[in-house]
Amino acid sequence: MSGLRQLYGKKSNGTASDNLGVDYVIHYKVPANDLVGAEAGFLQLIQALTHVGLATEVRRGDAGSLLIFVKIASKNLLAQQVYRGRLQDWLQGVRTSGPNSDINRTLEDEPVTEAERLRLVYQLIVRPENEGGAGINQASPKWRHVADIFPLHDQAFNQRWIQKWTKKSLLDEADLGHVRDKFGESVAFYFAFLRSYFISLVFPAAFGFAAWMLLGQFSSLYALACGLWSVVFLEYWKKKEVDLAVQWGVRGVSSIQLPRPEFKWDYEAEDMVTGEPVKVYPYLKRLQTQLLQIPFAIACVVVLGGLVVIANSLEIFINQVYDGPGKQYLGFVPTMILVIFTPTFSAVLMKAANALTEKENYNTLDAHKAALIQKQFVLNFMTSYMALFFTGFVYIPFGSILFPFLDFWRRTAQTLTFSEKPLPTQQFRVNPERISSQMFYFTVTAQVVNFATEVIVPYVKHKAFAKAKELQSRDAHAQDHPEEADFLKRVRDECELEVYDVTSDYREMVMQFGYLTLFSVAWPLAGCCFLINNWVELRSDGLKMALSCKRPIPWRSDSIGPWLDAIGFLSWLGSITSASIVFLCRPGTTARMTAWGGLVSILLAEHFYLLAQQVVRFVMNKVESPGLQQERKERFMTKKKLLAENLGQEATAKAAVPGVVAGEKITKEALEEQARQASMQGGHGSCEELFWQRQRGMDETIAVGRKMMGQQAGF
Amino acid sequence: MSGLRQLYGKKSNGTASDNLGVDYVIHYKVPANDLVGAEAGFLQLIQALTHVGLATEVRRGDAGSLLIFVKIASKNLLAQQVYRGRLQDWLQGVRTSGPNSDINRTLEDEPVTEAERLRLVYQLIVRPENEGGAGINQASPKWRHVADIFPLHDQAFNQRWIQKWTKKSLLDEADLGHVRDKFGESVAFYFAFLRSYFISLVFPAAFGFAAWMLLGQFSSLYALACGLWSVVFLEYWKKKEVDLAVQWGVRGVSSIQLPRPEFKWDYEAEDMVTGEPVKVYPYLKRLQTQLLQIPFAIACVVVLGGLVVIANSLEIFINQVYDGPGKQYLGFVPTMILVIFTPTFSAVLMKAANALTEKENYNTLDAHKAALIQKQFVLNFMTSYMALFFTGFVYIPFGSILFPFLDFWRRTAQTLTFSEKPLPTQQFRVNPERISSQMFYFTVTAQVVNFATEVIVPYVKHKAFAKAKELQSRDAHAQDHPEEADFLKRVRDECELEVYDVTSDYREMVMQFGYLTLFSVAWPLAGCCFLINNWVELRSDGLKMALSCKRPIPWRSDSIGPWLDAIGFLSWLGSITSASIVFLCRPGTTARMTAWGGLVSILLAEHFYLLAQQVVRFVMNKVESPGLQQERKERFMTKKKLLAENLGQEATAKAAVPGVVAGEKITKEALEEQARQASMQGGHGSCEELFWQRQRGMDETIAVGRKMMGQQAGF
Repeated sequence: MSGLRQLYGKKSNGTASDNLGVDYVIHYKVPANDLVGAEAGFLQLIQALTHVGLATEVRRGDAGSLLIFVKIASKNLLAQQVYRGRLQDWLQGVRTSGPNSDINRTLEDEPVTEAERLRLVYQLIVRPENEGGAGINQASPKWRHVADIFPLHDQAFNQRWIQKWTKKSLLDEADLGHVRDKFGESVAFYFAFLRSYFISLVFPAAFGFAAWMLLGQFSSLYALACGLWSVVFLEYWKKKEVDLAVQWGVRGVSSIQLPRPEFKWDYEAEDMVTGEPVKVYPYLKRLQTQLLQIPFAIACVVVLGGLVVIANSLEIFINQVYDGPGKQYLGFVPTMILVIFTPTFSAVLMKAANALTEKENYNTLDAHKAALIQKQFVLNFMTSYMALFFTGFVYIPFGSILFPFLDFWRRTAQTLTFSEKPLPTQQFRVNPERISSQMFYFTVTAQVVNFATEVIVPYVKHKAFAKAKELQSRDAHAQDHPEEADFLKRVRDECELEVYDVTSDYREMVMQFGYLTLFSVAWPLAGCCFLINNWVELRSDGLKMALSCKRPIPWRSDSIGPWLDAIGFLSWLGSITSASIVFLCRPGTTARMTAWGGLVSILLAEHFYLLAQQVVRFVMNKVESPGLQQERKERFMTKKKLLAENLGQEATAKAAVPGVVAGEKITKEALEEQARQASMQGGHGSCEELFWQRQRGMDETIAVGRKMMGQQAGF
Repeated sequence: MSGLRQLYGKKSNGTASDNLGVDYVIHYKVPANDLVGAEAGFLQLIQALTHVGLATEVRRGDAGSLLIFVKIASKNLLAQQVYRGRLQDWLQGVRTSGPNSDINRTLEDEPVTEAERLRLVYQLIVRPENEGGAGINQASPKWRHVADIFPLHDQAFNQRWIQKWTKKSLLDEADLGHVRDKFGESVAFYFAFLRSYFISLVFPAAFGFAAWMLLGQFSSLYALACGLWSVVFLEYWKKKEVDLAVQWGVRGVSSIQLPRPEFKWDYEAEDMVTGEPVKVYPYLKRLQTQLLQIPFAIACVVVLGGLVVIANSLEIFINQVYDGPGKQYLGFVPTMILVIFTPTFSAVLMKAANALTEKENYNTLDAHKAALIQKQFVLNFMTSYMALFFTGFVYIPFGSILFPFLDFWRRTAQTLTFSEKPLPTQQFRVNPERISSQMFYFTVTAQVVNFATEVIVPYVKHKAFAKAKELQSRDAHAQDHPEEADFLKRVRDECELEVYDVTSDYREMVMQFGYLTLFSVAWPLAGCCFLINNWVELRSDGLKMALSCKRPIPWRSDSIGPWLDAIGFLSWLGSITSASIVFLCRPGTTARMTAWGGLVSILLAEHFYLLAQQVVRFVMNKVESPGLQQERKERFMTKKKLLAENLGQEATAKAAVPGVVAGEKITKEALEEQARQASMQGGHGSCEELFWQRQRGMDETIAVGRKMMGQQAGF
């Protein structure tokens, strides 16, 4: 039973930072206008939870809500759930070794982590009733009062964790292991990616600094080095990802798809692999909806691209052409346009993306998420990079040629002010520093602002909000049992926190990677800034998760998912943009610039990139990753063990040594047996037997052969 | 024992076309100058064979040789070998289902094909002694007199096979299955590839014909269609290959590497997966040798490329510039140069390739073969396509510009003839038909010639040679037993046949594929010619294998191996060459041709190709290949079966239904048990227990919750 004892982890010391054995808190809304419905729903909820073996306690929440505390009722049930989960994993090919027939030994061999327990309990809560769960599906109207289901933060761990990370200069794999045990593989993969990315940033930071000191902007040597780095990093991460997945025992977990509750199916069919019934939505029907992605992408490009072109050209006009009164105030107009309209348009487009993805009606959560991320990526790509594309590919190379178009703003200004006299203007001159200052904005200013909005603002907001709520509902809380008061206060606090979404953290890092590969040739110090930023990021993301967000449900995953493709795309595109920027923006090239030269440099850069990719892949594939090797070894050993168990040592030994021992005996016996058979069967096949019996046994063959050789020598 | 009976296939009818149960014939040379050595070797050979359980018979061969007939001595030994082989396959992950502990049932479930039996017997003959084989390694000096080890043709089958194929217009998969059962998967994969390629050729033949009629040469529309076709075919074949491998039960077989007997190792190490000792040759040492491939490739390009440039420019000079006496004879000079020097240089380079690959010292046969094929591909690429590259990229677009360089030949001619007076010349005019006539030569003339040299010449040669030999050694054969005479005559015949090499057949088809993707835009009828040619090829290759070659050892393989990469490369290169040819050779473009336009068309074509590849891959991946699905299903079922066997139905059922039944009971019992534990443990953890025992059971929770809701509503 020592296996069971480990399930609940170490015993608490009874303070408020302890979770009192609570697995999940269900935040249950009791709206004043639907009291009857809420009461009926509450009854059903408690019954459903109890029915699947979950113990419940109810306490007052903030105004108009209850807190339902849930824990798995018995150690035996948990053990059963763990066993069942691992068995499923093995059936699906995630685990290499089959389950032991003794449940308790299984748990002793591999203790249950907190993440595994929480994942299993959550699945027990939300899984449909016909699959043995309580069926608490927040999307269904039946459970409309269930506002949230979330686990409680382990405050003692969080404190130790954040303290440790802020003191360490470099995280090691054990640190990731702790994150994995507490928050699940999905979150751990983000931190693992961020760590690998952070470490590998040392290279672009180093040669970026060197390039900045020695070569200046727009150095083709730096572009080359940066492209190579991105290839190596990408291929390295692909290997690392697999390694981690094997190490964490989640390789292949992405093939176990979680069904999406909102999915609407047309008909049922039999699963080709497991033979179980599956719900089907015709592929062609979905494809029709997916084709709407093309107009969506065009809309993104036109709306957001147009906005950037308008704001940037207006800014250039005001700063570099206009020289009249109010210049210092007018300078803010383009920024205002961007600040007001970018979020507005983004929000509208994001809504469209959500609706479109919803309409595409995916049957699994992963597919839905991937489709949504894809659309978000298009949006983010436009908002993040469009201004730089404009500066790098339009303003700097063709500024002098396109200058007359700025006249549009002059005429607009004159129309707006009904003024007939010409605006005071100054001499227009392309300023190549513009791209550097933009890069500085995106790599430094924006990252600092981002840190503030991501960590500090939500924390402060939450604290203020919680204070207000506390004052509001002080009376209710006065009824708390005094020994629980601190704990309940903390739980009510956590109720108000935002849901942690690892996607937005990934997005931030992928977009940063894009600045580096696409544009850092215009400002090589970017690598250094990102290196510093990410040291903080690695900690602040932890801080954010621990302080300003609810503890996430510890989902599993075996990779960083669709972001890998995004990184690959940015890395490839970087080879093209870097070459173009070098060619277009290098000072002094404008005069002797030819389209021919530009195309050749793009062609060369891209093929160099593709070639380097092939070479790096080839070299990396030579070295089998330790994770894969370990997995293959495990599979081999499992089979060998199974073989030994099933067949016994005897059969293995017999199969391993073929005829060395048995051979000599066999030949004579076999021949005699055949002769017997021949005589019994009569004439049929006699020709064959005659042939094989001319020389009876080895010695006769040798003798006959020798004779023949002698005769032949005599020729 | 019915399983054992199937091992030997159907009984013979005793005619000469029957093989008398012979598995292998060992052709043993008895050179007059080493009679003693041959005799000692013979003794060892027979002993070694007998020792591993092989029955032997010896007969006279042609002058100076013996024929040693080998068959596996007993059905039991064969059954053991089959069982051992399948067990190994399962351990290595080739088979999805583990072996049954009963040998005979295994054989009944899946009867042994002739290919499997022959493969196992061959391995028994050649496997090293410490691994349970006879250790007959032809590379070792000990067995220097063993000229060949080969199985005998099944003449009755061959006859039926060829007859059937010549009558059928289209082969089906069952036909491939027969080839697989007789000649092994390695050969069957070639025929499967050829069949798929032949069928898919209908498309380029159709739109090639249409383009020829409607659009003429150098049509960009045709180039587009052809590029798309090559992408679709490539991706289709990748899927098909996996499907076939699963269907034939050989998926993953390429990971079971056959050791190369010539391999020299530096030290031994432990295999990371199986834990067995493996022989190691340091990777870096091999890499040093591999780097020699770069000068080798350069040598190929310079020597063979130079030859083509010399011969082609000379030909152009003679045919299009020179107008003096003897023009009709001089016209043959360039052809003579090519005919004499191309094979000479190729042979030298091929020798270098062989030596280089030998020096690279691979430890497995597959790696050695792949490295050799890679080098051969460079060689073949040069000899096959260089002339067309010269015409398409130098002669047609730049002929008029480069015309002065032809003056070199005039001066050379004058120097050679010591003549001072100018050579009679005519007006030079670029003839765009040159590329078409070259393509006609490569697609029609060369293929016909090839058919003749590949099938007819060896057959006639062999017949004549055999006749001569027969006359020479008639006396020896007079000593044959009369009832064996016909059989022995046939075996002596087969001894003289060439070894069948599937590589050269693959090479031919891959090179043909290259003509289609790289240059067919210059002569769109190529597809039609290849379609007709390959209908014949599919049969003539069968004929060649059956009549002019020894029966091959039935090796397994799970793909067409390195040729897939070659096809992918040619397909990609085709997107570039087609675009360039269209741009450079389209009539009337010479004047307004710009480097800019050429580069844009290449850039567009290549990216269109890469995009199309991504789309086709995406679409094809949506449809899970039936083979993979079947495999996954098998694995799933195997595990399920294992589970049922190991754990019994009870455990499975318990694991599948978690707490639905047990739930309600558990909660109360568990709580009571916990209360007991708490009282025993004393104060420690009391806070937690107090918390969970405020509401005893579901009903209390519901009652308390309702009360709270009522209170809150009162706010």
